Amino acid sequence: MPDTASLFNQLGVVKRHIVRADKAAIDKLSRFGVATIHEAMGRVGLMKPYIRPIYTSARVCGPAVTILLQPGDNWMMHVAAEQLQPGDVVVAACTTDNDDGFFGDLLATSFRARGALGLVIDGGVRDVADLTAMNFPVFSRAVHSKGTIKATLGSVNVPVVCAGAFVNPGDVVIADIDGVVVVPAARAMDVANAAEKREALEADKRAQFAAGALGLDMYKMREPLEKAGLRYID
Amino acid sequence: MPDTASLFNQLGVVKRHIVRADKAAIDKLSRFGVATIHEAMGRVGLMKPYIRPIYTSARVCGPAVTILLQPGDNWMMHVAAEQLQPGDVVVAACTTDNDDGFFGDLLATSFRARGALGLVIDGGVRDVADLTAMNFPVFSRAVHSKGTIKATLGSVNVPVVCAGAFVNPGDVVIADIDGVVVVPAARAMDVANAAEKREALEADKRAQFAAGALGLDMYKMREPLEKAGLRYID
Amino acid sequence: MPDTASLFNQLGVVKRHIVRADKAAIDKLSRFGVATIHEAMGRVGLMKPYIRPIYTSARVCGPAVTILLQPGDNWMMHVAAEQLQPGDVVVAACTTDNDDGFFGDLLATSFRARGALGLVIDGGVRDVADLTAMNFPVFSRAVHSKGTIKATLGSVNVPVVCAGAFVNPGDVVIADIDGVVVVPAARAMDVANAAEKREALEADKRAQFAAGALGLDMYKMREPLEKAGLRYID
Amino acid sequence: MPDTASLFNQLGVVKRHIVRADKAAIDKLSRFGVATIHEAMGRVGLMKPYIRPIYTSARVCGPAVTILLQPGDNWMMHVAAEQLQPGDVVVAACTTDNDDGFFGDLLATSFRARGALGLVIDGGVRDVADLTAMNFPVFSRAVHSKGTIKATLGSVNVPVVCAGAFVNPGDVVIADIDGVVVVPAARAMDVANAAEKREALEADKRAQFAAGALGLDMYKMREPLEKAGLRYID
Amino acid sequence: MPDTASLFNQLGVVKRHIVRADKAAIDKLSRFGVATIHEAMGRVGLMKPYIRPIYTSARVCGPAVTILLQPGDNWMMHVAAEQLQPGDVVVAACTTDNDDGFFGDLLATSFRARGALGLVIDGGVRDVADLTAMNFPVFSRAVHSKGTIKATLGSVNVPVVCAGAFVNPGDVVIADIDGVVVVPAARAMDVANAAEKREALEADKRAQFAAGALGLDMYKMREPLEKAGLRYID
Amino acid sequence: MPDTASLFNQLGVVKRHIVRADKAAIDKLSRFGVATIHEAMGRVGLMKPYIRPIYTSARVCGPAVTILLQPGDNWMMHVAAEQLQPGDVVVAACTTDNDDGFFGDLLATSFRARGALGLVIDGGVRDVADLTAMNFPVFSRAVHSKGTIKATLGSVNVPVVCAGAFVNPGDVVIADIDGVVVVPAARAMDVANAAEKREALEADKRAQFAAGALGLDMYKMREPLEKAGLRYID
Repeated sequence: MPDTASLFNQLGVVKRHIVRADKAAIDKLSRFGVATIHEAMGRVGLMKPYIRPIYTSARVCGPAVTILLQPGDNWMMHVAAEQLQPGDVVVAACTTDNDDGFFGDLLATSFRARGALGLVIDGGVRDVADLTAMNFPVFSRAVHSKGTIKATLGSVNVPVVCAGAFVNPGDVVIADIDGVVVVPAARAMDVANAAEKREALEADKRAQFAAGALGLDMYKMREPLEKAGLRYID
Repeated sequence: MPDTASLFNQLGVVKRHIVRADKAAIDKLSRFGVATIHEAMGRVGLMKPYIRPIYTSARVCGPAVTILLQPGDNWMMHVAAEQLQPGDVVVAACTTDNDDGFFGDLLATSFRARGALGLVIDGGVRDVADLTAMNFPVFSRAVHSKGTIKATLGSVNVPVVCAGAFVNPGDVVIADIDGVVVVPAARAMDVANAAEKREALEADKRAQFAAGALGLDMYKMREPLEKAGLRYID
Repeated sequence: MPDTASLFNQLGVVKRHIVRADKAAIDKLSRFGVATIHEAMGRVGLMKPYIRPIYTSARVCGPAVTILLQPGDNWMMHVAAEQLQPGDVVVAACTTDNDDGFFGDLLATSFRARGALGLVIDGGVRDVADLTAMNFPVFSRAVHSKGTIKATLGSVNVPVVCAGAFVNPGDVVIADIDGVVVVPAARAMDVANAAEKREALEADKRAQFAAGALGLDMYKMREPLEKAGLRYID
Repeated sequence: MPDTASLFNQLGVVKRHIVRADKAAIDKLSRFGVATIHEAMGRVGLMKPYIRPIYTSARVCGPAVTILLQPGDNWMMHVAAEQLQPGDVVVAACTTDNDDGFFGDLLATSFRARGALGLVIDGGVRDVADLTAMNFPVFSRAVHSKGTIKATLGSVNVPVVCAGAFVNPGDVVIADIDGVVVVPAARAMDVANAAEKREALEADKRAQFAAGALGLDMYKMREPLEKAGLRYID
Repeated sequence: MPDTASLFNQLGVVKRHIVRADKAAIDKLSRFGVATIHEAMGRVGLMKPYIRPIYTSARVCGPAVTILLQPGDNWMMHVAAEQLQPGDVVVAACTTDNDDGFFGDLLATSFRARGALGLVIDGGVRDVADLTAMNFPVFSRAVHSKGTIKATLGSVNVPVVCAGAFVNPGDVVIADIDGVVVVPAARAMDVANAAEKREALEADKRAQFAAGALGLDMYKMREPLEKAGLRYID
Repeated sequence: MPDTASLFNQLGVVKRHIVRADKAAIDKLSRFGVATIHEAMGRVGLMKPYIRPIYTSARVCGPAVTILLQPGDNWMMHVAAEQLQPGDVVVAACTTDNDDGFFGDLLATSFRARGALGLVIDGGVRDVADLTAMNFPVFSRAVHSKGTIKATLGSVNVPVVCAGAFVNPGDVVIADIDGVVVVPAARAMDVANAAEKREALEADKRAQFAAGALGLDMYKMREPLEKAGLRYID
């Protein structure tokens, strides 16, 4: 766990220096889909499937700058903007379930100007037509026009739980139409390598399947199925 | 509140003459998005975010002709058709939560022939491919093929609660990918003017954000954040 | 009910020979939408509306090869692949509610190679971008990258309840953007004929509506509405 | 509609003088259950069924003092306390869906000291064991310990939409294990009288049912059922 | 499958003579809980867990008289009353998801007078305080006061899908605080015997667990866990 | 963060030695309710409110022994039993959302024999009547009879995300009717002390409220409300 661990869920804090995952690992991870990376990690690290992209082709991969929001309040979005570096992905959690529209095209303009690549938010967003036109990828729990205030402190760059996933600032966040996966910074290159291997294997399997081979034979399942008691009847 | 107020939630009634919001105000409102109008109204008037467009580019703005449906029964849709005037938007509430397919391409053809621009319904719709091909905007709580009957009286042009929003017949309903907002007829021009002002301001802000300015500085947030106790750490 | 009825919900069984609905009936049904067929059947046979297509134009019609899955386990998908015949539609139920990603592009490649046309699943799927690019229609309760194991027996070609609908292997399953409907094999041609009649009538009604006619008059509703007590006020 | 109508959904307002429903009507309504009153009103006026009592025997009837809350903020609860009169029932709506714990035993102590009888809230509550021990009836959308702040203005005694029901301050709110119903102040005595009549009829029906009579005969349903086409088979 | 199978989901039909499960099997099943019976059946036959008892001690076991309801319409409840025999359990499905209050204390009085033991309904109920006082067990998807009409035909004693479970009239339905399980009539005695065996085994296991034995040893799990790769670390 | 941090979400691991929170801190925390402790922690640490007790008076406080389950599989429950020490509270997370009945009276007997005080589970439980009779407190996302298998490795005593909260083995878990809160072991005594202070203050406030004092005056809210723009009207 990175040095920010003791800050988990703490409110009223902005951590300025975070250790972002290795650039090469991020670049490599960016070549794979969420499902592949999740498998390469050992089938963990996914956010809940209620987080959905605002447009079909939305895709993003980068180190997380985290935000802990309060319900109905997007003050910390502006605080976070200052901490962004080129290539970052903003991950916004909230202290409670809330669908309000914390984010729209103005903040997207600001985040992009700072170099951020996209946003994953366990909350609502708005200005979806503009965000789509900007090709700014957002993954959210809701689309909602509900405006937010700027009154209560949350935090920036503390570890958070976002849509069921634990996210440390600097972890790699990959999001596409299949969901969102979080790769701990320390494991980024290992996972990227494992994903690469997995994908290489898949190409071969795909060819076999396309040629009409059965998984029953390719994976040698007939014996274990029989042992488990599977009965074929007519 | 308009003169229909005493009819709130009453069943078995069709009000023939309603006071539609001012045409100029509607025209002006039609230039703005739902999020902007909601803000211009003071952050109220939104329907719940479970109401979603059946296709991405669906958009509508016009005075509401309201319907109060019974579950599994779309009789009042036909009664409402007769009350439609060019430019109207139909807003259909239901006496209970129900996802049945109250509306499809035949009714859309009828509504359009009468001049209606679209439908917002706290219920289900079907024939979505046809409705999309017709470019007839519908915002609904569900897509469902379930057929409905014509057996029980509801009402037309009584005030209703639709997806959490109170709607008087004649109020302006604006719907787009960000949701649905209801502007009381009496406030329509004021809200349109406020939306215009807000949008003008946003253009300037967008330019500043695009140039790399921070909300922290633009909105002078640094002092209140410090006063609130925000701590920066390394 | 077909001869498989006694196998309802039984685990650990693969039925090799099922009686698929008549090819001519399937061909005829494939010309109609889900809403029309559901009406033609007498307004029954629909799956719950939470089953949604992974892309807008997804559409499928064919005899069901059924699978009963265990949560988090897609072993039976591979067992089912061997039982597929050209034109089949796979219908996968689960012994409990589960959103895991039971199906992706490799299995789709296998299913297609065996001749299957598509999948309806009361569970999650992944590799949605690939499935869309392949134009392989899938209707699911969720999109989720969560990987599954191959450890527990379910069944293939036993009758199942899938998303609230009872499905016998061989029944015709029609799915489009309006939902999923199941036509018992024995009724397939009757329903196809009824759908044809219904659609013919609709063309005429559509023309009348487009010309401005009211349902009130077309369906002679004015008298029953009056009898039911509908009051018109000004 | 009462004189507060123009204040619907307005923020930042406290109305000090509201017209409470007639005391005699409230007393009479308090003798009937929610289901009976809802029927007596013509089957309207119910809140959504997700509002549930915190303990089984919770029951309340009185004129509404309304609150419009902001998400995660219970400031207006304290503002409302000052406006309470003996016999009042507090009805708290929120500008968005929010399950935070807006209310606990301290506020209940305050409300009770001011004479309030109970609370209906489209939000969360906490200290449920204490509230139960106090026998302070609360009907809520959630039980949640999540604390709230005091930072943003809502309103007191403006008309609100609460859990799908429109509530004017002064309307009679009746809540029991069957749900929550809102009776407009102007209709309170009429509804109470209708409820009384309905209940009288029910006693007689109950006796007939207990003696084995069938609704088919009591309500003369056999003929309409036959006309509708009901077939009896063996 | 019983002789009613061809009537599955058919509307407008009342079957007068159904084959109820064997009385001795029902009596024996009534001694076991839902979880035990579900296991004895091979882990199938459960309704979805959203069906909950209206009071904690509600419990029922008997042959099903089935009802297929239309949304917002309880006409078939009265039709069903005439078909009830002492010991029956009413199972009410609906053609769509609907939480309306289809059932209350009057119908409970009628059903009880006809000998019915209780109700399982994929819909809402009301008069919960009265039903509890009567000790009339009801298992429902919602508590809701919403009144229903008597206008559209459903069916009585046709096979239905209720809360995800397939129910033939005459099948044994057992419901308690752990849920609802449906035992096909033809398997009733076998399942009862299997439940008896299972319960006998459980008594012994319970004693061993109470004495401090570990499942790891009782079920000889250590070796398979090791084989699966479980690592113990300090 | 404790030494287990690097094991977060790892599968196939059992950690035998964990550092349980200080006994004195646990004893002190056991005197306070969940809402109080959550406030004392700074308004963080709560699980989602969908976790509910199986009976009203259920209450538990102790150091967490964590389990990471696979869907439909309770193998790790037996593995965990061996790691339990007197006073422990079991916290079971799952790699995906799953309502199956992972836990019943046999496991409760085993856990109790090992000294465990109760269970918090982001999954389903069964045998609720027995568990209640045993007075074994369980907090769960569902009650469901669905049986589980023993086939796939999860973990014991690795850090997990359970119902939205991050839990390290050894952290103090407090659960009552208001929800579930997790106190990091390292902060346990500080939080206990803060809870004590808060409760002391509340007694005084409660007395003032009971005597009719207003929060407006007690908390000096009138000035900030006025500054925020609150308008009183008649």
